[in-house]
Amino acid sequence: MLRTHTCGELRISHVNQTVTLTGWVQRLRDKGSILWIDLRDRYGITQLVFEEGKTDSALILLAKTLGREFVIEAEGLVAERLSKNDKLPTGDVELRVTKLNILNSAKVPPFTIEDESDGGDELRMKYRYLDLRRTPVRENLLLRHKMARQTRAYLDSLNFVEVETPVLIKSTPEGARDFVVPSRIHPGEFYALPQSPQTFKQLLMVSGFDRYYQIVRCFRDEDLRADRQPEFTQIDCEMAFVTQEDILNTFEGLVRHLFKAVKGIELSSVSRMTYADAMKFYGSDKPDTRFEMKFVELKNNTPSSPLEGRVREVFSSRVLDLTSGKNFNVFDSAELVVGICAKGCAEYTRKQLDELTDFVKRPQVGAKGLVYVQYRSDGTFKSSVDKFYTADELKKWAEAFQAQPGDLMLIMAGDATATRKQLNELRLLMGEKLGLRDKNKFAALWVLDFPLLEWNEETKRYHAMHHPFTSPKQEDIPLLETEPGKVRANAYDMVLNGSEIGGGSIRIHDRATQQLMFRKLGFTDEEAKKQFGFLMEAFEYGAPPHGGIAFGFDRLCALFGGSDSIRDFIAFPKNNAGRDTMIDTPSTISEEQLKELGLIIKP
Amino acid sequence: MLRTHTCGELRISHVNQTVTLTGWVQRLRDKGSILWIDLRDRYGITQLVFEEGKTDSALILLAKTLGREFVIEAEGLVAERLSKNDKLPTGDVELRVTKLNILNSAKVPPFTIEDESDGGDELRMKYRYLDLRRTPVRENLLLRHKMARQTRAYLDSLNFVEVETPVLIKSTPEGARDFVVPSRIHPGEFYALPQSPQTFKQLLMVSGFDRYYQIVRCFRDEDLRADRQPEFTQIDCEMAFVTQEDILNTFEGLVRHLFKAVKGIELSSVSRMTYADAMKFYGSDKPDTRFEMKFVELKNNTPSSPLEGRVREVFSSRVLDLTSGKNFNVFDSAELVVGICAKGCAEYTRKQLDELTDFVKRPQVGAKGLVYVQYRSDGTFKSSVDKFYTADELKKWAEAFQAQPGDLMLIMAGDATATRKQLNELRLLMGEKLGLRDKNKFAALWVLDFPLLEWNEETKRYHAMHHPFTSPKQEDIPLLETEPGKVRANAYDMVLNGSEIGGGSIRIHDRATQQLMFRKLGFTDEEAKKQFGFLMEAFEYGAPPHGGIAFGFDRLCALFGGSDSIRDFIAFPKNNAGRDTMIDTPSTISEEQLKELGLIIKP
Repeated sequence: MLRTHTCGELRISHVNQTVTLTGWVQRLRDKGSILWIDLRDRYGITQLVFEEGKTDSALILLAKTLGREFVIEAEGLVAERLSKNDKLPTGDVELRVTKLNILNSAKVPPFTIEDESDGGDELRMKYRYLDLRRTPVRENLLLRHKMARQTRAYLDSLNFVEVETPVLIKSTPEGARDFVVPSRIHPGEFYALPQSPQTFKQLLMVSGFDRYYQIVRCFRDEDLRADRQPEFTQIDCEMAFVTQEDILNTFEGLVRHLFKAVKGIELSSVSRMTYADAMKFYGSDKPDTRFEMKFVELKNNTPSSPLEGRVREVFSSRVLDLTSGKNFNVFDSAELVVGICAKGCAEYTRKQLDELTDFVKRPQVGAKGLVYVQYRSDGTFKSSVDKFYTADELKKWAEAFQAQPGDLMLIMAGDATATRKQLNELRLLMGEKLGLRDKNKFAALWVLDFPLLEWNEETKRYHAMHHPFTSPKQEDIPLLETEPGKVRANAYDMVLNGSEIGGGSIRIHDRATQQLMFRKLGFTDEEAKKQFGFLMEAFEYGAPPHGGIAFGFDRLCALFGGSDSIRDFIAFPKNNAGRDTMIDTPSTISEEQLKELGLIIKP
Repeated sequence: MLRTHTCGELRISHVNQTVTLTGWVQRLRDKGSILWIDLRDRYGITQLVFEEGKTDSALILLAKTLGREFVIEAEGLVAERLSKNDKLPTGDVELRVTKLNILNSAKVPPFTIEDESDGGDELRMKYRYLDLRRTPVRENLLLRHKMARQTRAYLDSLNFVEVETPVLIKSTPEGARDFVVPSRIHPGEFYALPQSPQTFKQLLMVSGFDRYYQIVRCFRDEDLRADRQPEFTQIDCEMAFVTQEDILNTFEGLVRHLFKAVKGIELSSVSRMTYADAMKFYGSDKPDTRFEMKFVELKNNTPSSPLEGRVREVFSSRVLDLTSGKNFNVFDSAELVVGICAKGCAEYTRKQLDELTDFVKRPQVGAKGLVYVQYRSDGTFKSSVDKFYTADELKKWAEAFQAQPGDLMLIMAGDATATRKQLNELRLLMGEKLGLRDKNKFAALWVLDFPLLEWNEETKRYHAMHHPFTSPKQEDIPLLETEPGKVRANAYDMVLNGSEIGGGSIRIHDRATQQLMFRKLGFTDEEAKKQFGFLMEAFEYGAPPHGGIAFGFDRLCALFGGSDSIRDFIAFPKNNAGRDTMIDTPSTISEEQLKELGLIIKP
């Protein structure tokens, strides 16, 4: 090694040792007779010093030619500092340089390499290799490495085997859009990049590998949105001879292990909630359970749409109507009147309340309006519906909300599904406003019993909510023929702080059920056989019961790092147009390449 | 879990415990009044027993319906066996079944699921999920998992960071052919799949990540040969602030760690050889050093072709001519006369000698003939060139060969490069015949100082022997302008038992040298900028000296597993036509997909 120590290593105990450091010039302070350089590497920063009278003058001259981000090798004597810097682990010492070797010069970087950079997103992406020099970005990738190591340590300890599955696989119509790879050897034919190793991990179960995992790249050719990447990484897992309970316990264990090993946090046990409850009480299948603020229904008149029907059935005992017949048409005509109670917000000003109304009316949320009821600390009510409801009636609402004087009730109404979604947005906003969504607090949740199918208005058919290999609950199988939308699946998601971090299911493991499922999804038997014949055939040769889960590794790392953006946790991410602006891809290829592939680009 | 124990777990200490096992019916022996089932899972085999009078008769009836590869769950009492099987770790006990649950039935598999299967390659690939049930195949993948774990353990302990680099990158003309991925969002543009993460790992060095590794999938669209896979896995590594010596020591350490941790073998230290020596003494840049049998030159008259010139320079002191002027035209006209000494083979019969001649004359080897000299145990010589050379002259040859009575000298002649290649094949064959290539013996070797460039007759230009980022030896840089073929690179390969398992180099880290290199490779400055502008630009912002290596992980696993075939160590390999016959890919995609991609398949 060109160095004897790293820039994060020297302590008072090294004083009087001759050492060699290598690294980048972070900062250079030239006080005329004395020159300090902060030398940076991955491990830290160490102060170099050149002093007139003490340092060879040629060396001082050379040091004065250095600029930011020059790469140097410096030999010298470790000395105790006069004025120590207790912010740096190496702050007790400095290096009195005796030899200096410029390993490489550097142009002035297009943005500052500091914790807070002056570079915009675009610039930082184009020069990602410079952005990665910044401590917070480097820390993100080191965190990611630690997460991967600990994931492997946990799963290895439980006898899981990491098996690498192929990347050049087969395009299938179900799910998102595939990236495809033209075959040169078989002109007119294509491989596809995997959206997940789903069928392969199931085949590994058929093979008897009984506990599989892989930290694996997956691909989706989706229309890009902020914070979506065309390639992403999954912790992909599968187990055989298990019940759903085994999977939940094993992977609750994984997440708790990660919190303990990576962040030193004892996560409290992962709570559980049915999908129906999540939708009813939070309007979301990924509720943020760092805070309560559950939905309270004042009226529920949902028709028997399959899912709503289910929700209603389960909770019919709680259905009330505290709003109708008072000539307030908005509520009278609504399917659902539902609200949240914002503790201690009764004194919100008119302006603050208007802002909330504006928020829910934004096109991204899409509500028509918002009703508020201020339960003032003196016990009186002030609401936007005072014309229609008496104080007694509002008092009843307050009871339903378990509101106390000083609280603010925020109520929305309309179509049940849409209203719940809108209220979910408002709930998250209020959580934010009330400081209930602390990034350093973590609440994990299993959401269980997802619907097997969801109706798609566009294609006029049912689609698999999870994927076509998810098993229906045994007791709901008869409903597959009569009310497919009511069938619950053995499917589960893990939610952390309101983000879905993983999801999985107990799979179908017999041909007949799998075939039935494909039919329900609108496959002809022929199509099903062409696409998934190998899997259905495999089920005939002794397939064990099995199930699994996949975690979104990028998102998991981001949440552990306290960030909303997965991009900060990927070394070389693509931008929102799926482009890597640093290497400039996608790009054109040569005529020769196209010819070899037998392809013509449509003019 | 449906089971309480695995099929590899029960011992005499479990006797009288009630346990539940799950697994596959390996074998069923029905002796009328007593029925044994060998139940198999990933962990082993346990014997189940059903006995008339002791087992419920309905249970016996049910057990009799089982077939090979049925998946069952069996509860019972662990009992000591009367006749123990010391070949099985569980052979002291059996399970007296009290409950039996058929989890899944199985059709008769298309081949036997035994250590030695009756299935041909094609059948086994089509039903790979059944092939993977076979113990040797499963063991291969478990070995692979162990290799990956230990690789990570070693590198993690040295502060290497695993960083995931992108799979959707940019197509570049240098190297092998890229697989490309059409972009739907940017019609007419393509991503490429990486042949290696070369430029990204170099950028990580520029970023200050100083020690990087990744166990990573790579892709090459080559015309397929036996045992080549379009996708393969590398252990990809890079280090900054290092000399070549640091890299050699670090990765010799990795290989020794793997041998110790995975196979319990203390590998002797990795020997070193220059490329020039390897070519001169073994006719190969990946000599099998499990055995000596070095080449001995009787005449060396190589012209000054760049590489040969170099070889000759280095070894000029040893150049001899012990063959010319005796009217043996084959040798007189040859550039090189070179042979090997096969210890103890003097008594080879005429038939055996003819077989050797036939071997070297095969088109795959391509020699014109073979000269033999038998140095008989009585001290006399018998050779195929007795007409031209006296016993005294042959004696001199024997001295050069350090041959003893009883040895056989095998000599070839002709163009130097071709002859060395041919003799290499013969040497390997003789090593095989003499039992010197034991798969359980391991000899690792560093081959150093590879040429930087090699001349390509087809393109009439120099190509990078390693890749365009490899640095030339400082002292050879002047030769770049005058005799490019003589320039040596800071490049190294690791060879294990005659297979290249890894290779790497110290990289160029300044723009000027990199630009010069691209020019030498026939790039215009414009082309170089279009393809690799980002890297050259990165070199201007403070790039540290760096170098690295990549190991072929599939091959490494195969060698550790004592196999010649990498396919046995890949869960779902492709066949020689790049096809996965199990899932049937590559395959056609829909018109809709092609339309979205803006592509037309050439009719």
